[in-house]
Amino acid sequence: MSHNTFGHLFRVTTWGESHGPALGCVVDGCPPGLSFTLGELQAYLDKRKPGQSRFVTQRREEDLVRVLSGVMPGEDGETLTTTGTPISMMIENTDQRSKDYGEIARRYRPGHADYAYDVKYGIRDYRGGGRSSARETAARVAAGAIARKVVPGLTVRAALVQIGKHRIDRARWDWAEVDNNPFFCPDPASVPVWEDYLDGIRKAGSSVGAVVEVVAEGVPAGLGAPIYAKLDQDIAGLLMSINAVKGVEIGDGFGAAELTGEENADEMRMGNDGQPLFLSNHAGGILGGISTGQPVIARFAIKPTSSILTERRSIDADGHNVDVRTKGRHDPCVGIRAVPIGEAMVACAIADHYLRDRGQTGRLGKA
Amino acid sequence: MSHNTFGHLFRVTTWGESHGPALGCVVDGCPPGLSFTLGELQAYLDKRKPGQSRFVTQRREEDLVRVLSGVMPGEDGETLTTTGTPISMMIENTDQRSKDYGEIARRYRPGHADYAYDVKYGIRDYRGGGRSSARETAARVAAGAIARKVVPGLTVRAALVQIGKHRIDRARWDWAEVDNNPFFCPDPASVPVWEDYLDGIRKAGSSVGAVVEVVAEGVPAGLGAPIYAKLDQDIAGLLMSINAVKGVEIGDGFGAAELTGEENADEMRMGNDGQPLFLSNHAGGILGGISTGQPVIARFAIKPTSSILTERRSIDADGHNVDVRTKGRHDPCVGIRAVPIGEAMVACAIADHYLRDRGQTGRLGKA
Amino acid sequence: MSHNTFGHLFRVTTWGESHGPALGCVVDGCPPGLSFTLGELQAYLDKRKPGQSRFVTQRREEDLVRVLSGVMPGEDGETLTTTGTPISMMIENTDQRSKDYGEIARRYRPGHADYAYDVKYGIRDYRGGGRSSARETAARVAAGAIARKVVPGLTVRAALVQIGKHRIDRARWDWAEVDNNPFFCPDPASVPVWEDYLDGIRKAGSSVGAVVEVVAEGVPAGLGAPIYAKLDQDIAGLLMSINAVKGVEIGDGFGAAELTGEENADEMRMGNDGQPLFLSNHAGGILGGISTGQPVIARFAIKPTSSILTERRSIDADGHNVDVRTKGRHDPCVGIRAVPIGEAMVACAIADHYLRDRGQTGRLGKA
Amino acid sequence: MSHNTFGHLFRVTTWGESHGPALGCVVDGCPPGLSFTLGELQAYLDKRKPGQSRFVTQRREEDLVRVLSGVMPGEDGETLTTTGTPISMMIENTDQRSKDYGEIARRYRPGHADYAYDVKYGIRDYRGGGRSSARETAARVAAGAIARKVVPGLTVRAALVQIGKHRIDRARWDWAEVDNNPFFCPDPASVPVWEDYLDGIRKAGSSVGAVVEVVAEGVPAGLGAPIYAKLDQDIAGLLMSINAVKGVEIGDGFGAAELTGEENADEMRMGNDGQPLFLSNHAGGILGGISTGQPVIARFAIKPTSSILTERRSIDADGHNVDVRTKGRHDPCVGIRAVPIGEAMVACAIADHYLRDRGQTGRLGKA
Repeated sequence: MSHNTFGHLFRVTTWGESHGPALGCVVDGCPPGLSFTLGELQAYLDKRKPGQSRFVTQRREEDLVRVLSGVMPGEDGETLTTTGTPISMMIENTDQRSKDYGEIARRYRPGHADYAYDVKYGIRDYRGGGRSSARETAARVAAGAIARKVVPGLTVRAALVQIGKHRIDRARWDWAEVDNNPFFCPDPASVPVWEDYLDGIRKAGSSVGAVVEVVAEGVPAGLGAPIYAKLDQDIAGLLMSINAVKGVEIGDGFGAAELTGEENADEMRMGNDGQPLFLSNHAGGILGGISTGQPVIARFAIKPTSSILTERRSIDADGHNVDVRTKGRHDPCVGIRAVPIGEAMVACAIADHYLRDRGQTGRLGKA
Repeated sequence: MSHNTFGHLFRVTTWGESHGPALGCVVDGCPPGLSFTLGELQAYLDKRKPGQSRFVTQRREEDLVRVLSGVMPGEDGETLTTTGTPISMMIENTDQRSKDYGEIARRYRPGHADYAYDVKYGIRDYRGGGRSSARETAARVAAGAIARKVVPGLTVRAALVQIGKHRIDRARWDWAEVDNNPFFCPDPASVPVWEDYLDGIRKAGSSVGAVVEVVAEGVPAGLGAPIYAKLDQDIAGLLMSINAVKGVEIGDGFGAAELTGEENADEMRMGNDGQPLFLSNHAGGILGGISTGQPVIARFAIKPTSSILTERRSIDADGHNVDVRTKGRHDPCVGIRAVPIGEAMVACAIADHYLRDRGQTGRLGKA
Repeated sequence: MSHNTFGHLFRVTTWGESHGPALGCVVDGCPPGLSFTLGELQAYLDKRKPGQSRFVTQRREEDLVRVLSGVMPGEDGETLTTTGTPISMMIENTDQRSKDYGEIARRYRPGHADYAYDVKYGIRDYRGGGRSSARETAARVAAGAIARKVVPGLTVRAALVQIGKHRIDRARWDWAEVDNNPFFCPDPASVPVWEDYLDGIRKAGSSVGAVVEVVAEGVPAGLGAPIYAKLDQDIAGLLMSINAVKGVEIGDGFGAAELTGEENADEMRMGNDGQPLFLSNHAGGILGGISTGQPVIARFAIKPTSSILTERRSIDADGHNVDVRTKGRHDPCVGIRAVPIGEAMVACAIADHYLRDRGQTGRLGKA
Repeated sequence: MSHNTFGHLFRVTTWGESHGPALGCVVDGCPPGLSFTLGELQAYLDKRKPGQSRFVTQRREEDLVRVLSGVMPGEDGETLTTTGTPISMMIENTDQRSKDYGEIARRYRPGHADYAYDVKYGIRDYRGGGRSSARETAARVAAGAIARKVVPGLTVRAALVQIGKHRIDRARWDWAEVDNNPFFCPDPASVPVWEDYLDGIRKAGSSVGAVVEVVAEGVPAGLGAPIYAKLDQDIAGLLMSINAVKGVEIGDGFGAAELTGEENADEMRMGNDGQPLFLSNHAGGILGGISTGQPVIARFAIKPTSSILTERRSIDADGHNVDVRTKGRHDPCVGIRAVPIGEAMVACAIADHYLRDRGQTGRLGKA
C-alpha cells in the first residue's frame, strides 16, 4: 500500500477532491477476459450516491462513472471486457458549493482532520473536506464492482446492524429486506425505530454513529497467509481506511475475548457431500489468517459525522480560540452510506488474495 | 506489505518456524546513527518470553537475540550503532519437543489453521504450529525495540485490560503496576481476581480470551495520510496480524457508534503554552488518518488459545471424523504475552509513518 | 513497482490506450507546496508530441494536459500548488484512426508484442498498439515535469547522440543547439547528415534505431543505496521500460569493460572552495549505487520502429503464415521522441530517491 | 523493491556485511512443494566463491549455506521441500582480516562508494567494503538456486564474453567449455589469451573490466507486461544492481541502434510442429516487455575492480588531499565471479514474473 493505493496484485489507486473537477481510480492487475456492463457498475455506485433519502447528505451528484481504459467494447455495445491493462474510471463532480466552506478555510472543525492536515502539509484544500471527503469512496465502490468479477462464485453483501444504541435483532435478519429501506437494515422491525430516532438527530443538526456488518460468501478456502498477509489483516486495514471508522472485528471480534477455548473452537465434521463441514463460525471464516471456506464475516464501527450544527470549541490557524458550527449538507449518520463501501473494500481484499494465492500456489486455475 | 514483510520505509521481514533451528527478522530502512545495546533489546524480548509464570506456556526458551548485521560496535563493547544497512537479528530455538506433535500431523485442530494450511499449501510443518507458532512474535518484539529508537521522544506502553469477562477498573489505572504482576495488569485490584480465575482455567486445561490496550505518547502531529496510508489503518492491520487477534479499536472504537456528534467531537483550545490543547481524546489521537499529537490509543481482542485439553470434534487429512485434544505446553491466556507484541507493532507502525512523513514533507528534521 | 506503477515515494501510475478516449497518470506522494503552471507542464508535453516534423509520426494530437486533482489554484489564475494528495493528469486522444488497424487485429506484426500479448492475455486491443503505443509516454512526460520540481536545483536534459551508424562528434556538443533542430541533436554539424539519412529511411518506408544521452545536474551526493535501491539500478530499469529500448549505460557503460582500474578510477582532490572535486566522471555520477554529486549520465539505445512498410514474414492468430506490412502513421526513428521521455524517467528516478533519502536519513531538509 | 529487497511475488531480501559474523537472505513467496538438496544449493555457491584460481580474490571462504526455515526435511535426510513460508539462508564469514582496512577508515578509495556513503549515512562500515562488498552476492546466488526451481523447464546459463578489449569469437561458442576454465569462457581459444593478459594485470596490481552474457532457455511466452513490469526492465534493473555493473543490454542491445526496421524484425513462421517459430532473435526473447518463448538473452558490463595497488589521488574524511593505494585481497577481474551472479539475477527475475503472470492470468497452472 502506498499513500493512495491499496492491494498487491489487484491494485487500486484513487484520486480526487470533493470540489475538484472529478475523482476516480485506476484498477491495475485485473485479470483479462472479465466482462461487465456500465449498468452493473452504476448500480453499485447508485447505492452509495448522496441524496437518496432524508437520512443522508442532500448534495446532488449523479455519480456517473466513465471507463476510460483497460477494456474492449463488445459487439453488443454494452459489454466491456477487461484486457489486463489498467482500468481508469472517472466520476465528475457537478454539485460543488465551495462558498459554503470559506468560513472553515482557517478554522479547525472538531472531529475533522483540519488541524492535522495543516500541521502535516502546511496547505489544505478546505472545500468540502478536500481529499478527506467521503466522495472519495465512490472510487472505492467502482473498484469493488470490478473486484467482484475476479473471484468466481463470490458474493459480498453488507448491512447496517446498529445506529447509535439501537441494534438489530439478529434473529430477524433477512437479506431481502436490506434494499427495502433507506438504512440497508436487514431487520424490518428496526426500520421504524431507526427512522424516528434519526429524524430526531437530523432535526437537531446532530449526528450519530453506526455499525456495519459485511458477509462474503463463496470465498475459497486457502486465501491469505500465516503472518503479514493474513486475509483478516488486510480486511481490517481496508475497513479502517474508510472515513470515520474506529473499530473492526472479524467473526466474534471483541466478543471472543470473553469466550473459553471450548466455546470458541469451530468444530468440524465430514459432511454428507464428502466436504468438510464447520459446526459454527466464531472465527468469521478465517483461521490463522487463512480463509476456511466458511463465510467471511467482518464488522466495523463508524463514528458520528463530525460536521454538526451545534457550536463546538476549537482554534483557528492563527492560534485563536473560536467556536465552530459546520454548515453545509451533511449525513446525520454517515454509517448508512458506508454499507456499499464496506462491501467494496472486502471484495477488493478477497480479489487481491485470490490472485496472490494463484500466483504462489497455482492451485486456483483460470476462472 | 508482502507475505512476511510489513512497513514501507521502516520494513520488517520475519522468518522461522517453531521447531526449526532458529527464527529471526531483517529490519530494513532504519535510519543510520541510532544507538542501542543488546541489553535493551533483550529486555523487551524477556517480557515476551515463555515460562515466566504459571499463566503462560512452560516451554523454556532463553530467546537470546543476536544482531548479525547493520550495526557498528562501539568502543565501549556494548553500544551498537545503526549504519543504515539491514539489521538481521536471530533467535535460536532450543526447547523444541517435536514428538509432542506427531499426533496432529494429519489431524486438524479446531480453532487452528491446520485445515486451511493443507488446502492452501498441500504441505504443512505441523511441529509446534510451524510458521503459525507464536514464537514468530519474538522477531516482532526485536524489531519493535529498534523502531522505538526511530522517533525522538516516543513512548509506547501496553497493558492487559480484560481477561474473559473480567475487565479492569480504569479509574485505578496505574502504569507503575504493569510490571508488578504476571498479567501486565495496570489495576492492582484486578490481579488477585485474575489469578484465581486463570488458575481455574489452567487447571481445567481450558483457555480464555483477553483485551490489550496500547498507548503511544510523544507521537508528533501529522503522521499518516488521508486515504490508504492512514495511521490507524496501518495500526489496525498490524495488530490484526498478531496471532489470535479478532478485533481492533482506535480511541472509543465500537463505543463511538453509540455517540452523537456533540459527544464525540474532541474540542480544542489554545493552551497556556501557546500550543493547541485537545479537551478530550475520543479519537484516540488520530483524525482523518493523521495523528493529532494526542496519545495514540489502540485496543485489540485476542481469542482464547485454541490448544486445549478438552476433546473437540474435527476431521483428519484423510477425510475421517476424529476427536482432537491438543497436548503440548500452551498458554492458558495467550493474550498475556500479546502485551509486548502489541507495543512492538504500534511502535513499528509509528516509526514507518515518521519516516514516510519525513520523506514526503521534509518537515521532520534529522533526529 | 507494479504493472503500471513505478517509484516508491514519488509514485507514478499511468493508464490508457492509443485509441481509447484518453490516457493519463496519477502522481502520488508528491511533496506539498510545490508550484507550477499548466504552461510549464504543456511545454514538456509539446516537446514529445507527434507531428512536429517530417521525421516523426504524422498523427495529430494536441496533447493538452488537464490537472484533475492534488493542487490548489493560486490567486493569479495560473499557478497550481501541490497539496500532497494524488495529482491526476489526463490527456484526451483526438486523432485516432482505428480503421487503419483492422488488418492487424489477428496478424502479428514482427518486432511488435502482438503475439506475446495474445499468448499472455488471450485478448488484445490492437488499435494503434493499444497499451503498448508510444502515446503512453505522454503521461511519463507529464509526471516528469512534476518530478523536476521535487529536487531543488535539479536540471535534467537529454540529447540524441546517434541515429543508425551516425554518431555525433562529442567535441562539438552544445546544449544550446538541442532545441534548434528536429532531432534534439547537440552537434549542429550532424544535423544535415541526419536529415539526409533519415529522409532516405522515411521515403523507403523503413526505420532506424538511435541512442539518447541523459544528463542530470544538481543531483545531491548521497542519493541511492548500496544494494537493491541503487540509483543506477532504478534509472536502468526505468529507461529500459521505455518502448523499444534495448540497452542502458551509466557513465562509461560498456566502455568500462575495456578500462583498467587506473584508467577507470575517478580521482578526487579538495577544490578551492573547500568542496571535494572529482577529476573525471567515468562513473557517470554514481558509485556503489549512490550519487557522488557529479552529473549523472545515462545513455539508452532504441531499436528501429517495428512498424515498416516493407513486407515481413509472420503468422496470424489462426496459425497461418502471412506477410505483414504495417500501414499507419509511424515514426521513422522513434528514438527522436524518446529524448524528452528519457529526461522524464531520469527526473522521476532522482525525485523518488531524493524523498527516500530524506525519509531514511533526514539530512535533506524541507525544500 | 525496497532498499535490500527485490521481486514482487518471488521476493528476496539480503543482509550482511563483509566483516560481520554472517550474511544471508530471506526468500519469500516461494511456491510450496518444490524440492532441492543442500548439495544443489552449494554447487551454485561454489561457482561464485573466492579463492578458486589465481585470477580471483585469495580470501578463503567456504561459503557453506545453511537453510534455517521454510522447508520440511525429507525422509532421505537430504531432500528439502519448500512449505511456502519464508526461506532463510545464512552463510558465515570466516576469513575476515579487518586490520587490513584500518587505513581506509577515513580515506576515500577512488572508484568506491566510500565518499558517497559518508555523505549519505554519516557512518560507514569500512571493513572489507562493508555492505558494498561483493560477499553480498553469495546471498543472491543462493536465492537464484531456489528461483530456478520455480519455473518448470527453465535453464539459465551465463558466460564471460569479454575481458578488457579481448572478446571471444562467438562462432566458437561451446557451453560445454564454460566449466573447463577459470573464466567461465565459452570459447576455448580465448582462454590462453585471457590467462596471459590477466596474469599481467594481476602482477601489476591492476584490474580490468569484462562483459557477461546470460542466456535463459525454457522461458514461457507471455511473461512480463507492457509498461512498468516489462521483463527486460526488471532484468536490466537487477543486473545493474550487481556491484560494478555499468551497462546492460537485451538481445542486440546497443547494436539495435544501428539496424533498420527490416533488419531488426524477427520474422515468424509456423513450425512443422504447429508451433510458432522465430527466424531470428534480435529481440533477445522479449518484445514489448513480454517474453516471446525464444531464449532470453542479456549482457552486462562490469567495470574494473576499483581496489588496485597503484596510488591514486583522493581526499580523506577531514578534507585533506591524500594518495590511496588499496591493499587487501582483490579480484583482478571482478567480472569473472559475476557470471554465476548474473545467472542468479536473471533466474530470480523470471521466477518472479512467472508467479506474477500466474496470479494475473491464471494460465500457468500448478507446476
